[in-house]
Parts: sequence; C-alpha cells; structure tokens
Amino acid sequence: MSKQQQKSALSESESKPASGNVSAESAKKIRNFRKNRSSEKELLKGLLEGNKTALGRGITLIESNQKSHQKQAEFLIEGALPHAQKSIRIGITGVPGVGKSTFIESFGSYLIEKGKKVAVLAVDPSSSVSHGSILGDKTRMEKLVTEKNAFIRPSPSGDSLGGVARKTRESIILCEAAGFDVILIETVGVGQSETTVHSMTDFFLLLKLAGAGDELQGIKRGIVEMADAIVINKADGDNQKAARDAKLEFNRALQLYPLKESAWKPEVKLCSALYHEGISDVWEMISDFKEKVDENGFFQHNRLEQNKFWLYQTINDYLKSRFYEDSKVKEELKRQLQLIENNETTAFAAAKHLLSLA
Amino acid sequence: MSKQQQKSALSESESKPASGNVSAESAKKIRNFRKNRSSEKELLKGLLEGNKTALGRGITLIESNQKSHQKQAEFLIEGALPHAQKSIRIGITGVPGVGKSTFIESFGSYLIEKGKKVAVLAVDPSSSVSHGSILGDKTRMEKLVTEKNAFIRPSPSGDSLGGVARKTRESIILCEAAGFDVILIETVGVGQSETTVHSMTDFFLLLKLAGAGDELQGIKRGIVEMADAIVINKADGDNQKAARDAKLEFNRALQLYPLKESAWKPEVKLCSALYHEGISDVWEMISDFKEKVDENGFFQHNRLEQNKFWLYQTINDYLKSRFYEDSKVKEELKRQLQLIENNETTAFAAAKHLLSLA
Repeated sequence: MSKQQQKSALSESESKPASGNVSAESAKKIRNFRKNRSSEKELLKGLLEGNKTALGRGITLIESNQKSHQKQAEFLIEGALPHAQKSIRIGITGVPGVGKSTFIESFGSYLIEKGKKVAVLAVDPSSSVSHGSILGDKTRMEKLVTEKNAFIRPSPSGDSLGGVARKTRESIILCEAAGFDVILIETVGVGQSETTVHSMTDFFLLLKLAGAGDELQGIKRGIVEMADAIVINKADGDNQKAARDAKLEFNRALQLYPLKESAWKPEVKLCSALYHEGISDVWEMISDFKEKVDENGFFQHNRLEQNKFWLYQTINDYLKSRFYEDSKVKEELKRQLQLIENNETTAFAAAKHLLSLA
Repeated sequence: MSKQQQKSALSESESKPASGNVSAESAKKIRNFRKNRSSEKELLKGLLEGNKTALGRGITLIESNQKSHQKQAEFLIEGALPHAQKSIRIGITGVPGVGKSTFIESFGSYLIEKGKKVAVLAVDPSSSVSHGSILGDKTRMEKLVTEKNAFIRPSPSGDSLGGVARKTRESIILCEAAGFDVILIETVGVGQSETTVHSMTDFFLLLKLAGAGDELQGIKRGIVEMADAIVINKADGDNQKAARDAKLEFNRALQLYPLKESAWKPEVKLCSALYHEGISDVWEMISDFKEKVDENGFFQHNRLEQNKFWLYQTINDYLKSRFYEDSKVKEELKRQLQLIENNETTAFAAAKHLLSLA
C-alpha cells in the first residue's frame, strides 16, 4: 500500500455524517468500514511501536476464520511487511520429555538478558482448545512469561497443518514488525510438522537426550538431516558421561551427511537447560551461523526460496481443495472409485472424466 | 463399451458409399472413422489372442502424443481391461553395473521354461531416442529376445516421469490382456523412478552387489524400505564369501524395519545371473509371496490402493499443469515472484492473487 493510499484512508476514517445520497444501510456499512479501517490503523501503529497487546490482537485476527477478520489481518500484514525480516527464526524440535519448554525458558531468558526481544510461537496441528497444546500451558515458562521483552503464543488450534503453517508464518511477520528479533518456533516430533517448521526457519535445532537410543527417542533420520545443531539436554549430574558419549556418537553420525547448501557444518552441543549450563554456547553457535550465512548469501537466498516454496505450496493446496470440494466432483468421484474397484475403468480414464467436470 | 455398440461399430465399418446428404469432407471423416474403428477392433482382437505384433502396435499408440492415437489407445485399453489383472507385476531396481539385464535375461528365460509368458518393460524418464535407454539395447538380452513367450519393450522416451508412468501402467494392461502373466518392470536407481515403479508393482526386488558399501552402491535408505527382496547378484567365484557376508548384514539391517502392511518379511537371496544360480530360489520366494498376499487379501487391496493413488496423482498433476500453463498466470507469476523477492508481498497474498486469475 502506498503512502498516498494510506493518507486518503486516514482522512476517510474521520467521522462524517452520511450524505443524503446513500441509503441508511449503505451509510452503516461505510461507517463500519471507516471504523474498522481506523481500528486497524491503530492496531498497526501499536504493533510497530512494539505494543504486545496490539501484537496479540493482530495474531488473533490472523487466527480467525472470519472473512472480516481476514481482511483486517491482510491489512496488518501488508503494513508490517516492510518492517519485518530483521530477525533470526529458530526452529526447535524434540520428542516430548526432552525438555523443550525448559530449554526455551532458559534460552529465552538468556537472550533477554543480552538485550534481545524474544517471541515464542508453536506449530502443533494436533492442538485444539479443549485438548491443550504445546505452549498452551504458559506456567511451564514461569520466568519468560513475565518478561517485558518476551512474547509467548501457543499454536493456533483446530486447523490442518497447512492452516497452522500459514497462520504461524503470518504471525512471524507481525512479531518481527513489533521488534522481536529472535523468533523461536517450537514443534513436536510428530508427522510433517517438523518439515513445516524447518521450511519457515533460518536455523533448525534438534533437542536430544543422552543415553536414549534413536529408536527410544523416536527421531526419524530425516529430522537429523534437517538439523543445523543437535543439542543434548539434561547433560547434568549422573547424565554427564552419557551425554559426552552421545555427543561423540552424533558427531560421527553427522559426518556421514553431505555438506549442506548453507555450507554450515551442523554442531553437537551439550546443555542443561534446568541449570542454565551450555545455553550461551548455543547462542554463540547460532551467532556464528548467522554471520556465516549472511556472508555467503545463504540467509537471504534461503528466505527467498522458502517464500517461493510457500507460494507454490499454497497454490497447489488450494487447487486441490477447490477441485475435490466441488459438489459434482465429490459425487462422481465415489462412482469412479467404484468403477476402479470393479476393474471397469483405469485410474487415468477416471481422472480424465473427473477433470472434465470442474 | 457394450456388446451392442461393438456390433454396430463393426457393421458400420463395412464400406458403403457416402449418402447424398453429407458433404464430401464429412464423408471422408466418416470413412476414416469407420476404418480406424475397424483397425482398432482388429488390433484388440489380435492383442487378446496374444499376438505380439498387435501388442507392440498397441503400446505404440499408448506412447504416441497424437490425439487420434490417444483415442485409439483408449479404445484398446478399455477392451483389454476385463482381460487384464491375471499377472504378477515385479519391479526390479539396482544401480548401473549391478547386472539388471543379465538378471532379467536369466530370470525371464527360467520363467519361460516353466511355461510362463514374460513381458519386460522399463521406466526410465531420462531415456530418449537419441541417447539410448535401459532395455533399449536388446542385444543385452540375447536369449530372451528370441523367445516366443517373451515381450521386451524399452522405456517410453522423451517424456516426464509422470508421462512415462502413465504409459507404462497402460502398457502393463495391454501385456496382461495379451496373456503375459509375469510382468517385469526394470528401473534405475535415479530420482523418483523407483518410487514410481514401486507404486505400480506387486513385488519390489532390489538387486545388489556383494562387497560394495551402501555409499558405493548409491542406494538410498528409502529404497531398502520399499524392497520385498534384496537379491545379491554376482555371488560367484571369488565373490561368494563377500556375498554371504553381505547377506548376513542385509538380513540384520532388514530386521530394523517395521513389519510391512503385506505382512511379508523381506528376504535376502544370493544369485549369479551369469551362471543361472539361485534364480529358481528367487521365483520360489516370489511364489510364496504371491500365495501369502492372495490369502491375506493384500494383493487385491494393494492393487486397488495403487489405482486410487494413480487416480489422485493424475488429477493433481493435471490441476497444477492446467494452472501454471495458463498464460495470465504465467505472466503474473513472474511479477509476483519479483514482489516476493523485494519483500513487497507475502507468499500467501501472492498465491491468493494468482488464484483469482484462473
């Protein structure tokens, strides 16, 4: 949106009586529109000033499935976009019990002491209002939640992974525009959500435990492949020897993978989030990473590639849902599947027929 | 197509003078149509009688990108479908040099001695007329190529993997209708072609060499996961000890994988295709497999699931190509990608805009 348009929208938002030329209904609509525009502009202003209440309300608009809220959200995102992108986005994953919340509490508090503003988001498509979710229980981050420079938001709920992903990506933009310069995105090691978080972050951190085999930890090989760092948590007390052994083992395993496009060699770190040990090491590593990928151009390149990926992903998802939700297609699909089952048509003939309908 | 229609089409094909009511142009069209219908019916008849020339011509129609040929191919496939499905479809993969051609020559000849009719197809999206392809060089299967009960066809060329896959699947139907009861589908360990062949076969066989590490053999872990059998080829002469060691190792590795939906436990076999050793063992194993999956219902279930997979795959591919090949979309996509690059729009806003065009 250009300066010009913004200005005219502003002047429109001053309250004027409806002219005699418009019906009462139209006048009401115009008043509502002006009022909404005005409140959106207020919201955007608050957001850009770093107001956490405004940020929270903005994300609520993004998460809403109401048409009018979506329009408002679009306005906010458009206004936020030029002010975003100044952050580092860090994905954090690990199986339940590995200590993600404790790690984020410790890591986030450390960053705030260093003068950073830290936003914590989550991607958990299994979450729903009734069933609770990761980050839903803010008491698990007792200290962080009270910090002025921390913003914590549970996963948007009751939606498909695609929907959660879109909402989280848009929320990142608002957080960045509100001045948060470290964005932590938590996810659980379930289904496709790790791949999704990987494709919206700059640095992907895998939390592990010492002493538990890969099978026990339920970590898929693909996740290790995506990781920029493996951080072995709970490396304290009796666990220390096992943690050091695990570090050696992971270092050996990581050498088998081909060099990443970022030219970054994934590192293995030990930490004890509970005792705040090794936390500064993790941040130092991520700072090294940032410096390296800024220098070799991968940082910007990767963000652009991620944006393109999401463009195509969004289009392809929509094309499919538009097609399969067509009522004619829905009905005929059942019939064609039956014909296939009876060996009376081929998959290709059935596809061709269905495609002729919509 | 019903019996009735077939009959009337037949009688139409007798040559009659064009009636005075139709133009010379229309009359020509009708004559051509009648002639084509007639030749298609001849072709289908030949095909169902097991005539290899008819089968070859049918597959040529499937492989053609001409509209009129496609119509003829559809007629053939429709007529073939009720007579297909009586075979076992075996996918065979392995890196270049592992001896796929020698294995197929030896295995195919063995099956023919056992009274089977063997069709050999290939899926190789990298092949093209000028560059040769797997199976393109039939001299590598000197014996098999001369057998009355063998039919060998190189990969359709000059097409995307999606196109090759469709053509191969349709060719399988014609081969089966022509009475071929063992269909071997060869592919190379490149890109997605193994996954593609896996999704059109009943049994997936991975050929390996003894003594070469996984890295050297360039086998991705996902391929081992798909395999119903690992056959270690060239287990002869000095190689025998290494082959036995490799068998132990693979057996150990296979135990780590979860049970397959088919309830079949993948086996590791040794063979020497060159010296025709271990070949009967491989067939015995596949017969055991077939018996087991016939009994537990997986065979039919899997074929149905594969058909459904191809239905959705075909539709989704087409939806995408229809969208991205739209001239308005093409042009605007460039502009939106530029806006994304300049950080002037989000991936989602760009997607929404593009979707409004087509």
